[in-house]
Amino acid sequence: MSKKKNKVEKVTEKQPAQKLRVMMLGGLNEIGKNLTVIEYGDNIIIIDCGIAFPDEDMPGIDLIIPDFTYLEKNFDKIRGILITHGHEDHIGAIPYLLKQINVPVYGTRLTHGILENKLAEHKLLGERTLVTVEAGDIVSLGVFKAEFIRVNHSIADACCIAVTTPVGVVFHTGDFKLDVSPVAGEMMDLTRIGEYGRQGVLLMLCESTNVERSGFTPSERRVGFSLDNIFMQNHDKRIIIATFSSNVHRVQQIINTSVKFGRKVAITGRSMINVVGAATRLGYMEVPENVLIDISEIGRYPQEMITIITTGSQGEPMSALYRMAFSDHNQVSLTSQDLVVLSSHAIPGNEKLVGRVINEMYRRGVNVYHDDDEVHVSGHACSEELKLMHALVRPKFFMPIHGEYRHLMQHKELAEFMGMDPRNVFVCDNGHVLELDRETCKRGVPVPAGRTLVDGYGVGDVGNIVLRDRRHLAQDGLIVIVATVDVDQNYLISGPDIISRGFVYVRESEELMDEVREIARNTLTEMLDSGVTEWTQLKQNTKDALSKFLYSKTKRRPMILPVIMNV
Amino acid sequence: MSKKKNKVEKVTEKQPAQKLRVMMLGGLNEIGKNLTVIEYGDNIIIIDCGIAFPDEDMPGIDLIIPDFTYLEKNFDKIRGILITHGHEDHIGAIPYLLKQINVPVYGTRLTHGILENKLAEHKLLGERTLVTVEAGDIVSLGVFKAEFIRVNHSIADACCIAVTTPVGVVFHTGDFKLDVSPVAGEMMDLTRIGEYGRQGVLLMLCESTNVERSGFTPSERRVGFSLDNIFMQNHDKRIIIATFSSNVHRVQQIINTSVKFGRKVAITGRSMINVVGAATRLGYMEVPENVLIDISEIGRYPQEMITIITTGSQGEPMSALYRMAFSDHNQVSLTSQDLVVLSSHAIPGNEKLVGRVINEMYRRGVNVYHDDDEVHVSGHACSEELKLMHALVRPKFFMPIHGEYRHLMQHKELAEFMGMDPRNVFVCDNGHVLELDRETCKRGVPVPAGRTLVDGYGVGDVGNIVLRDRRHLAQDGLIVIVATVDVDQNYLISGPDIISRGFVYVRESEELMDEVREIARNTLTEMLDSGVTEWTQLKQNTKDALSKFLYSKTKRRPMILPVIMNV
Repeated sequence: MSKKKNKVEKVTEKQPAQKLRVMMLGGLNEIGKNLTVIEYGDNIIIIDCGIAFPDEDMPGIDLIIPDFTYLEKNFDKIRGILITHGHEDHIGAIPYLLKQINVPVYGTRLTHGILENKLAEHKLLGERTLVTVEAGDIVSLGVFKAEFIRVNHSIADACCIAVTTPVGVVFHTGDFKLDVSPVAGEMMDLTRIGEYGRQGVLLMLCESTNVERSGFTPSERRVGFSLDNIFMQNHDKRIIIATFSSNVHRVQQIINTSVKFGRKVAITGRSMINVVGAATRLGYMEVPENVLIDISEIGRYPQEMITIITTGSQGEPMSALYRMAFSDHNQVSLTSQDLVVLSSHAIPGNEKLVGRVINEMYRRGVNVYHDDDEVHVSGHACSEELKLMHALVRPKFFMPIHGEYRHLMQHKELAEFMGMDPRNVFVCDNGHVLELDRETCKRGVPVPAGRTLVDGYGVGDVGNIVLRDRRHLAQDGLIVIVATVDVDQNYLISGPDIISRGFVYVRESEELMDEVREIARNTLTEMLDSGVTEWTQLKQNTKDALSKFLYSKTKRRPMILPVIMNV
Repeated sequence: MSKKKNKVEKVTEKQPAQKLRVMMLGGLNEIGKNLTVIEYGDNIIIIDCGIAFPDEDMPGIDLIIPDFTYLEKNFDKIRGILITHGHEDHIGAIPYLLKQINVPVYGTRLTHGILENKLAEHKLLGERTLVTVEAGDIVSLGVFKAEFIRVNHSIADACCIAVTTPVGVVFHTGDFKLDVSPVAGEMMDLTRIGEYGRQGVLLMLCESTNVERSGFTPSERRVGFSLDNIFMQNHDKRIIIATFSSNVHRVQQIINTSVKFGRKVAITGRSMINVVGAATRLGYMEVPENVLIDISEIGRYPQEMITIITTGSQGEPMSALYRMAFSDHNQVSLTSQDLVVLSSHAIPGNEKLVGRVINEMYRRGVNVYHDDDEVHVSGHACSEELKLMHALVRPKFFMPIHGEYRHLMQHKELAEFMGMDPRNVFVCDNGHVLELDRETCKRGVPVPAGRTLVDGYGVGDVGNIVLRDRRHLAQDGLIVIVATVDVDQNYLISGPDIISRGFVYVRESEELMDEVREIARNTLTEMLDSGVTEWTQLKQNTKDALSKFLYSKTKRRPMILPVIMNV
């Protein structure tokens, strides 16, 4: 309480406590995707807390979580975490945050179903509070009231969140599309969104993924029609379909079509088994009896009576589809009697991996169907849907989120096309802060944001220096020079010996290695002879001499590690 | 001659000398792209000799050239190299082959113009014979007669090659598209191709790049119309256009449109300057006087009077566009008064690089136009053009080339759709051999083929072991354990010292490093105490102990190099 009083006193001076602060933390190339912070006085709520996947210039990194510095400093203000939906980039970092801060998490049933698996992996299940909500629910968190509102997306049970704050409504779309004929559940709640718009929305945060695509994203049902066609034309083949395990409605449609054509369905791939299990248990999927069979039972039925649903649509090595393609799956060997359908789209950066799996299957004579315009639809709003959202919400201020910088800028243009004053649109980077009151929105002082790298059990212990070394080692390998010197007597006792890894194939380059040894020996001897005994200088000169020689000979710059022992 | 006699004698036995042999060497994911061999008795000709670019799992590798083993074994049979066009994947490996084998190279003027630059870089210019041909020319090479026939492609002066052999005609399409309204030069010579078809073609090798795309590839001229529109709408901005330097006709169109709108044109980027220079000198480009200005002169004109043509359309770091985007270009600083047009398509694998440059430009408020359907057209035949080629050539046998395996398989389907007997279509991998006579085509014994890695000056000295080490080092870095032992007296004299690179940030992990040192010391001491003096065992046990410990602690597997010195 004393703290609050203190702030009230300050108000008369600068009124900082009466400002609403909105900021995005985390993310890599995409901005405003993984974690949003809404702050007012002593109240902070967090919307989503997801991971990003590393770029190819971050070797060895498993995943990237947001920088929690700001949250750690303000941990006593945090009232809770609100989750829009259960995708990795929105929930994946929750266990890492909950390890440091014990606050309740609010999400819908399926979202929590998936989150529970994660908490269990991190041994946090039962240690933290998960509050399950459903669309239409309003939760009170300090001065905030947050309403979950149904949207359509490529995962069931997704919501946008309207946060009523002391200075107005902040509307966060989460990820969404408009599906007027969803496979299950209801259409996005345009009415409720429109009501918020009519009452007045201070700030909208809207996703930007598909802003470059014109028109409307097709309904998920379109995939069902394509599947029916494919099953009809391939009635004589076993059909294997790879898709995203979290796309419950896609999996439902594959099962529906299989039932229609009298097929049994087997599931393979760990995450697919997990999600189908959770979705069935929680009532998000309906599977008639005697349809699902265990993957070990597929041999009991004629092949053309079988559908297999599998992970691996991104070509991930070790995934079930990858193992099938490379003849490394225990239960499934692919032949020319199989049709493999990729019901998915390659996520940018995965094109080559997916291509490798497809080529390998063609090589084995397997029939492959991978026209992603037919058997896949996006989960994100295209430009006309984004315009619809703007027309319904009609926010006073707008911050495009969830996209690369180019997408945010194009979303800004779209907002202006819809009539917004350019001065009311704020393209922010991660860590930027918007400060709002009822009438104004201004940029505040940025906070630390960005990325914390996770490598194995290590969180944040791999930084730029380590990555730079890894890239260097990857590029040209390594040479270790080992020598023992007697610094007192100024002479070389043994060595130098040369160890190389990742540089050249040594057996074919013995001559080169002899020269390296010779140069190292001469450099060390000359220095010792001329009385140099300074450790760092001995090492540096050896390194320089070898580096110069090797570049002139090979045009490569291996990392050179001189190990000089004094005995 | 005695050799020939020898073969004639064999003929009665197995008739191998009377078979025509066709094989493809080189390539990575794409097959039959870089080098084709046609062999009959003592006669070998080579069609194209290009490079492939490394995958992301080949760190440090600069480029990949074909495996020349088979050619080296048969070097005395080689009559010459025929080049279809001047792209890297068709000419890039010629200097490497010519270093080993001195044979004449046959190509068109622009192709040789580009090749000469390469030979100069390798200090071979003037040392080897380049024979310049033009479309319609026939060259005799041993028993073969090869005719160069004009095709359209994304580089000027491209040809397909019809080789008349003792058993029939082998028709190699090279890379092609049909452009009924080319920017310069003539349409692909359908008539001459049709004449070969009417006379009878034994075997066709046809490229497969765009087999998955329906319809016809649009004319290069369409880009010109789009450019006109863009220039009209952006009359108040400086316009910077990035494209492939080898696309002479694209560059010509950019110049034409600039002239139309009264702009001066400056060129930047080394390869762009080289190619424009060569193309102008050789008459492949027409630039009116007083249009080209030096990049250093752009400040003398109003910005909206300037067009800059640049390299970097693939987002290549160090390219001119990349440097502009990241404010590292000496002459060009981008602002919101600039429009940057990417007149190109991201080559698979380059999407992220291109995206990075685009985002950076948006971040600086630069206007960016990158709708590659409008300002780019492919240089390769889509499926209807491929069908046209099949309908004209009507080969007896067919080998799809120049594509990933999936493309070759789809091209096989296309050939069957066009009426070919499936048994007459041969999908081959690199190194596969087809043996033909006038009536039959059969698979022979494969020859060595695949890839030779080039890293700096090293050709073939980086193989699988070196790459595996590089990937390992990139993944989790390295730990060097240094210790000096007295094996005679069985004790540790000094160390163990620990050096780590690319593993963890050491200052933050001192405790871990202390533990590593402790475990290494204990392992060594125990072994020495129990009388183990075998070198490899001391090292192996230390490695095993540390590897196990580090994995349990960090879930990482750094490379561990024990350096144990005996004094």
